[in-house]
Amino acid sequence: MNFKIVIKIIGFLLIINGLAMLTAIPFSIYYGSDDISAILISGFGTALVGSLLWFLTKTDPNEDISKRDGYFIVALGWIACSVFGTLPFIIHGSIPSFTDAFFETMSGFTTTGASILKDVEAVPHGLLFWRSMTHWLGGMGIIVLSLAIMPILGIGGMQLFQAEVAGPSKDKIHPRVTETAKRLWGIYLILTFAEVILLLFGDMNLFDALCHSFGTLATGGFSTKNASVAYYHSTYIEYVIIIFMFISGTNFTLHYFALKGRPLNYFKDSEFRFYTIFIVIVVTSTAVYLNIHNSQTIESAFRDSAFSIMSILTSTGFVTVNYESWAKFFPEVFLILLLIGACAGSTSGGVKIIRYEILIKNSIIELKRLIHPKAVIPVRHNGKAVSIEIISKIASFVMLYMLIFIIASVLLAIIGLDLSSSMGAVAACLANIGPGLGSTGPATNYSNVPMLGKWVLSIVMLLGRLELFTVLILFSPTFWKK
Amino acid sequence: MNFKIVIKIIGFLLIINGLAMLTAIPFSIYYGSDDISAILISGFGTALVGSLLWFLTKTDPNEDISKRDGYFIVALGWIACSVFGTLPFIIHGSIPSFTDAFFETMSGFTTTGASILKDVEAVPHGLLFWRSMTHWLGGMGIIVLSLAIMPILGIGGMQLFQAEVAGPSKDKIHPRVTETAKRLWGIYLILTFAEVILLLFGDMNLFDALCHSFGTLATGGFSTKNASVAYYHSTYIEYVIIIFMFISGTNFTLHYFALKGRPLNYFKDSEFRFYTIFIVIVVTSTAVYLNIHNSQTIESAFRDSAFSIMSILTSTGFVTVNYESWAKFFPEVFLILLLIGACAGSTSGGVKIIRYEILIKNSIIELKRLIHPKAVIPVRHNGKAVSIEIISKIASFVMLYMLIFIIASVLLAIIGLDLSSSMGAVAACLANIGPGLGSTGPATNYSNVPMLGKWVLSIVMLLGRLELFTVLILFSPTFWKK
Repeated sequence: MNFKIVIKIIGFLLIINGLAMLTAIPFSIYYGSDDISAILISGFGTALVGSLLWFLTKTDPNEDISKRDGYFIVALGWIACSVFGTLPFIIHGSIPSFTDAFFETMSGFTTTGASILKDVEAVPHGLLFWRSMTHWLGGMGIIVLSLAIMPILGIGGMQLFQAEVAGPSKDKIHPRVTETAKRLWGIYLILTFAEVILLLFGDMNLFDALCHSFGTLATGGFSTKNASVAYYHSTYIEYVIIIFMFISGTNFTLHYFALKGRPLNYFKDSEFRFYTIFIVIVVTSTAVYLNIHNSQTIESAFRDSAFSIMSILTSTGFVTVNYESWAKFFPEVFLILLLIGACAGSTSGGVKIIRYEILIKNSIIELKRLIHPKAVIPVRHNGKAVSIEIISKIASFVMLYMLIFIIASVLLAIIGLDLSSSMGAVAACLANIGPGLGSTGPATNYSNVPMLGKWVLSIVMLLGRLELFTVLILFSPTFWKK
Repeated sequence: MNFKIVIKIIGFLLIINGLAMLTAIPFSIYYGSDDISAILISGFGTALVGSLLWFLTKTDPNEDISKRDGYFIVALGWIACSVFGTLPFIIHGSIPSFTDAFFETMSGFTTTGASILKDVEAVPHGLLFWRSMTHWLGGMGIIVLSLAIMPILGIGGMQLFQAEVAGPSKDKIHPRVTETAKRLWGIYLILTFAEVILLLFGDMNLFDALCHSFGTLATGGFSTKNASVAYYHSTYIEYVIIIFMFISGTNFTLHYFALKGRPLNYFKDSEFRFYTIFIVIVVTSTAVYLNIHNSQTIESAFRDSAFSIMSILTSTGFVTVNYESWAKFFPEVFLILLLIGACAGSTSGGVKIIRYEILIKNSIIELKRLIHPKAVIPVRHNGKAVSIEIISKIASFVMLYMLIFIIASVLLAIIGLDLSSSMGAVAACLANIGPGLGSTGPATNYSNVPMLGKWVLSIVMLLGRLELFTVLILFSPTFWKK
C-alpha cells in the first residue's frame, strides 16, 4: 500500500469538502440564520486539515495508483468526508450527538436521504443547504469530481474511478478517465441547473429549488420541509420532480450521447427499455388500483403512483403521500421495489436493473441449456454476448447483497425493531433510498432507531453506495498480503 | 415427445399409487373406522386406471426416454399422483372440496406437510395413514421407487432420475440407475424401520409410530395429532425425532457409504460440515436465548431450540412449541431458515446448503479476483474445482427461486394475506416445510387461506419439490419445439 498517495488524495477530498461547506454561507447570510460561525469554522477547518495533508505529503508525480490503493482511497475518502461533514451540525448544536450527525451526513453523501431530524424546518438554512449539498457531491461521486477538477490524478485515476463507479458494465464516454469525469459532471450540472429553473417557475424560492434539485439529481431525498415534497401542494412541482427522478435513474452515458445528438441510443439500450417498461407497468397498475379502490381521480392516482414508485425505484426517497396506507399488500411491493434500483451508470442505488436483467436472462436460457446440454448458448445484452465470468461476478454481487441484507436485518431485529421495520430500514439504507417501512416508513423517520442500529445502518449505506466490493475488499486477508 | 411412453409410465405410477392406498386398509379394520369402502374404491380404482394405461399402451421395449420425455413424465406423474391421491378424502367426505383435498395431497407428496385440516384427530385412521404414506412415497421419490422396483425402466431411467432428483452435484452410488434407486430406497426403508422401533419404545402405538416415522424420514411433517408432536409430552420421543430429522436432512449417499463401512465420508463432505456447524451455532444461540430470556431450564431450552430449528431447517415441519412467540425477532430468523434447507441428496426441501456454500465461496473469491484480475481462482468443493458453468447454473436456480418466492408472495398478498403471512406461507410451501408465519404459522394452519391462494401454494409446493426446472421447463417454448 502506498500510504503517501492515500493521504495526499484524502487531503484533496477534504479541501473540496471544506470549500463545499462554505457555499452555504450566502444562504446563512440571506436568511440571517445563526449557523454562520459553525459553517465558517467547519469549512475552513476541514479545508485546512485537507491542505495540510495535501501539501505536507510528498509523492513521486510519476507514481501509479495500484488497484489496492484505489479501493482503499475511495472507502477511506468517503468515511473521511462523512466524519468532517458532521462538523457544521455538531458545532452549531442542531444535531448534538456524533452518532446522529454521522448517520445524517453518511445518509447525505450516500444519497440515502434517511433522516434523524424530527423537525427539519427548525434547522437553520445554511445547515440545510450543506445537508443537501452532501447529496449532490455524493450523487455523481466526490472521487469523480476530484478526477474532473484535478487532471494530476489522471495517472491511476482509472483505479479510483472504478472503485467509486462500480457496476457490471462500463460504457466509456472517453478513453481518458479525466475527460469522462468532466463530461459526467458537466451533464450533472446542466441537468441540475435545468431542474432549478423549472422549479423556480413553480414558485419555489431559489433556496428550496436548489436543495430539491440536489436531492433529485443525486436521487438523495433530503427535503427542506418536514412534509417533504407534499408541503408544496403543487401538481406542477410534483411532475417536474417525477420527470427528473426518471432522468436521474437513467445511465448518464445515455444522456451524454443524447446531448451529443444521438438520442436514439436510449432505445438501443436494453437496460433502459427494461427500466421504462417496468415503470410503465408498475405505475399504471398502481394508478388503476388507487383509482378503483381508493377512489382517487385518474390524474391524482397517476401522479401519486408515479411519484412514489419513481421515488422508491430510483432510490430518491421524496414523499408526497404515505404509500404504506394504500393497501395491505403495498409494503410487500415496496420492499421488492426497494431492492431493485434503477439503471447502472445513474446516480440511483440498489442492485440495478442490468444485474437482474442478465441473471433473469441467464435463468431462462438455463432451461434451453437443459434441453440442449451440449450447445453453448450465451446471454446477450445490447447484442453482445455476456461472458460467464461476468455472470458469476454478478451472482456473487447479488449473493453478498442479500447476505448483507439478511445479516443487517437480523442485527436490527435483535436491537429491537419489528420484522417489517428492520427489513424495511436495511433495504432502504442498503439501496440508498431513505424511507423504509413501519417505524422507519414514509410517515416517520430514523430518530427512534437505537444508537447501535444507526451505526449498523450507516455502514450499510456506505456498502450500498460503493456497491459492496470496494468496502468489503478491505476486510479480505488477500488485500493486506504483500 | 414420445407420448406412448409417457402414458405407460404414468400408468405404472398410478398402479403403485393405488396399491399404496390399500396399505391403509389394515388400520381401517383395526380401528373399525368408516373409511374402508372409500379406500378400497380409491385404491382399486386408481390401480385399475393405471393398469389400463400400462397394458393398453404398446411401446417398443428398446425405445429410449429422451430428456424431454423425462421432464414431462416426472412433472405429469407427480400431478397425476396428487389428483388420484385425493380420492380417499373426497369419497369418504372428510375433505369434501377438491381444492382442499388437492392441497392436502400435494402437500403430502411434496413432503410439505401444510394442512387444511382443522381437526386432524377427527379424520379416520385409514385416511390418516394414507396421508402419511403420501409423505413417505414423495420423500425418496415415487419415480425413484418405480426405478427401484421396475428394472425395465432402466433404459433411459437416468433421465427420469435426474428430473426427480435434482441438485447441483450428483454423487453416484452405482453406475446403474436402477441399482442406485434400489440402494437409496433400501436405506430409506432401514432408517424408517429404525425410527418406528425407537418410537415404539417411547410408548407410541404402532400406528402413530409409522405415521410419524414417515413424516420424519420424508421431512414431511403431517402428524396424527392436532398438537403435532407436542401431544406426547415425551422428552424421549422429541429427542428421537430430533435425531431422525438430522439424519433425514443429510445426503443419503453418505448414509449408504456409512452402512458400507465408510462412516468417515460424513466428515470428508464439506456440505455436511457446513450443515452440522450451522445447526450447532443456531441451536446453541437460540437455546442460550431461551434459557436467559424465557427462563427455561437448560435441557428444555436446548430441546425446544433443537426441535424447532431442525424441523424448519430440514423442512420437516413438526411442532412442539409455538416458536413465533419466543421473541420479536424470531419470525425473521425463521423466514431465513425457511429458505436455506438442508443437504442436497437428502429428503429435505429448500435451496439446499451446497448451493449457498458454493455461491458464498464464489463471492469471497471474487474479492481475491478483484485484486488479482488475471489469476484464475476456482471455487473448490470437497477438494474439486467447481466449473463456472455450475456456478452460473446455481445462480440461475437461486434467481428463479427468489423470483418465484416474490411473485407468489405478491399474489398471496393481493389475495388478502398480510405481509408476514404471505411471505411465510410461500417460503414454507416452496421449501416444502409446512408451517409458515402469522396466520399460517405453527399455532394455526392453512384452512383459512382463500381458494385461489391454495392453488398458488399447491403449484409452489410442486415447484419446490422438483427443484423448479423440471416444472418450469414445460413452459419453455424450446421444450415444445421439434
